[in-house]
Amino acid sequence: MEQTQSRKACRAVILNVGDELLDGIRTNGHLVWLGEQLARRGVRVLRGSVVRDEAEQIAAEISHAWEEANLIVTTGGMGPTRDDLIRQAVASALGLKLVHNSQAEATLRDRFVRLRREVSPGDLRQCLLPEGAELIPNPRGTSPGIYLSHEGRTLVMLPGPGLELRPMFEEEVIPRLCSCGAACEEEAYVQIRTFGIGAVPLENLVRPHLLPGMTLTFGTHTGIVDARISAGESDACCDRMLDVARKIRDTVGDDFICTGHACLATLLVEQLTAMGSTVALGESCTGGLLASAFTDVPGSSKVLMGSAVCYSNDAKISLLGIPSCIISQHGAVSAECAAAMATAAAEKFGSDYGLSVTGYAGPGGGTEEDPVGTIYFGYASPSGVWTRRVVLVGDRLQVKARAVNTALDWMRRNLNCYGVEDKLHSA
Amino acid sequence: MEQTQSRKACRAVILNVGDELLDGIRTNGHLVWLGEQLARRGVRVLRGSVVRDEAEQIAAEISHAWEEANLIVTTGGMGPTRDDLIRQAVASALGLKLVHNSQAEATLRDRFVRLRREVSPGDLRQCLLPEGAELIPNPRGTSPGIYLSHEGRTLVMLPGPGLELRPMFEEEVIPRLCSCGAACEEEAYVQIRTFGIGAVPLENLVRPHLLPGMTLTFGTHTGIVDARISAGESDACCDRMLDVARKIRDTVGDDFICTGHACLATLLVEQLTAMGSTVALGESCTGGLLASAFTDVPGSSKVLMGSAVCYSNDAKISLLGIPSCIISQHGAVSAECAAAMATAAAEKFGSDYGLSVTGYAGPGGGTEEDPVGTIYFGYASPSGVWTRRVVLVGDRLQVKARAVNTALDWMRRNLNCYGVEDKLHSA
Repeated sequence: MEQTQSRKACRAVILNVGDELLDGIRTNGHLVWLGEQLARRGVRVLRGSVVRDEAEQIAAEISHAWEEANLIVTTGGMGPTRDDLIRQAVASALGLKLVHNSQAEATLRDRFVRLRREVSPGDLRQCLLPEGAELIPNPRGTSPGIYLSHEGRTLVMLPGPGLELRPMFEEEVIPRLCSCGAACEEEAYVQIRTFGIGAVPLENLVRPHLLPGMTLTFGTHTGIVDARISAGESDACCDRMLDVARKIRDTVGDDFICTGHACLATLLVEQLTAMGSTVALGESCTGGLLASAFTDVPGSSKVLMGSAVCYSNDAKISLLGIPSCIISQHGAVSAECAAAMATAAAEKFGSDYGLSVTGYAGPGGGTEEDPVGTIYFGYASPSGVWTRRVVLVGDRLQVKARAVNTALDWMRRNLNCYGVEDKLHSA
Repeated sequence: MEQTQSRKACRAVILNVGDELLDGIRTNGHLVWLGEQLARRGVRVLRGSVVRDEAEQIAAEISHAWEEANLIVTTGGMGPTRDDLIRQAVASALGLKLVHNSQAEATLRDRFVRLRREVSPGDLRQCLLPEGAELIPNPRGTSPGIYLSHEGRTLVMLPGPGLELRPMFEEEVIPRLCSCGAACEEEAYVQIRTFGIGAVPLENLVRPHLLPGMTLTFGTHTGIVDARISAGESDACCDRMLDVARKIRDTVGDDFICTGHACLATLLVEQLTAMGSTVALGESCTGGLLASAFTDVPGSSKVLMGSAVCYSNDAKISLLGIPSCIISQHGAVSAECAAAMATAAAEKFGSDYGLSVTGYAGPGGGTEEDPVGTIYFGYASPSGVWTRRVVLVGDRLQVKARAVNTALDWMRRNLNCYGVEDKLHSA
């Protein structure tokens, strides 16, 4: 892409290469990841294409993309094996020679010496670049990326492994795209993350605040509803976007979680860390997934003491010390049991807060009053114990995931409501 | 597709429609799911394409796919809103009229009466079908699928939500594809699932057993390595495939997990159920994910008593009763602590077996001898206690996931080795 081109004209096609993506062996996670990276930088992805490791097919797709986009990002096909064919395909599609890059070879030989591996002819094919292309270093693997400006278009070729591709794109490609004006330096949209409000009511709240030229898209996942507000191609909108987001946040109220992409567990860990408080969990139907959501967050060991995953009634009694009469009188799936589990978790683990989940994840279980999907939550804090009942839809894994997000969101709200009061009680 | 066409000629293109797939909002999980379904039935997917909710672009892709494939499967764009445009796009690409289907309207009105919702003009657009097309019922949503045989090709249009799409494809589409000879009735490949052997050594073991015409592909995920053996287009290979798989299984030995797609936790739950045995877990660095893997499996409540997720040292001492001297002398990340955690889990939960994990998931933690990624496992059975140390690579989430699979695989091996003996000890 030439310096003279406007960023606003940047239109991308993403081409993912690999038989495993078409044979049902691997999910194409690169498309969603690159799509988000590019959307954040104001680049519109026109189309995604997934093709086999076949040179002719790859070349045809490159030629096709060359007609419609000015940024083409490819993943895969860059390795040392015989089915890694993207270099030849690109050269043939664009009528460019492949030239050997001696810097690439030196880096590769260095790496192999450290790994105590022999360099094979296949490995050396990774040092070939289309003429005029630039090498993108890959400190995490053997195959460098390729960056080519040609005929007013930019072609970025990335290796397949996510652990190599992602840092390479963030550290090397985004800065190059920004510096040639293809991508914006600033975030191109504001994302309002909510929980507890549907997409339609959220749209009704958000729409009146938008300025002409701003666009609105929605994403929903496991109870979370995101509203993305983009400035589109208007600089005036860009400047006003944060103001608009602030107004929307105030309108949305308690259902507002954050702006951006943070997950509920991350926010809760941050909140508890800032308060200097700790939490312990008592889980039945979520079966460890609530604890796992917390422990996905680096630094969570400072706030999460642990979780008693009590899948059997005996375990609830023996490990958490739930009175057996609560289970026999009210059942293990009940507000009473949830309250006892939250209190017992806080006591047994010696934490400030206790959070519990018990319910029917399905497909078996459930009663007439409490069908499959019914979940009771318990929350114990220095200022009291609360319970809550919800009925969730979906299969077993979806009910587990939605129960986890519902629990995290409920604790977030409780901390917002009662956090200061709790501090006073515990002081 | 006509009856007279051979199944062997079936070549598919998958077209996924939706802005959210290109804006980085949603992962395109449909491609991998449909890819697997079709591969199992001997249909080769040539290409996958993801496009925006734009009628012209969708029509261009349909026309393009019409040139190269004889089966086209689309997802999304079928709903009642203004950006659901696939019906018009298909009609324009193929030069077909859209006709109103009164059966579809009757079904839709019935459904809306039950949901107590008003029928809008947008909802009624879901009753339009390209002329000559067949309705595919959708008991789980408002938008039916569409099945069209035209010009020697088959077009299958599916709604976007996975909970509607998947059963519709399995129950309604696959049988139609089989009956017209486009898909095989039998599984078209055998998948050998392994753990603990790399793809290259596995290929060296598998390759000599293959018959001419058989093809081999590999998939790796979280320590699991799958070898898929396909009969290709030879009927003779089809008949011999199971024999070949059996020989390979015997060659692979203990690293063989199963044929097919079952996950480690499912197999372990089945094995424990068959033995009438129970297990309890003590988790540190996996933080609940090991318990969650078990509890993803319906019926796991019969064999999993629970998990003590002890993220802090205090919790290991207070909840599991690990002697504090073990932690002070050997550290919480040690073989000694893993052994104590496995034994204590089995005791506290009253289970036959105990399985434990303690390690450094990163990014913080680790020592010179035990760097980030070092994991100790403990296994307590009626006939003894064992420990194991591994060093895993990857970021925090990958280390958690790999530690879970390593623990499950290790317990599977131990049950295979010692299961019978354990039975004698506990009898």
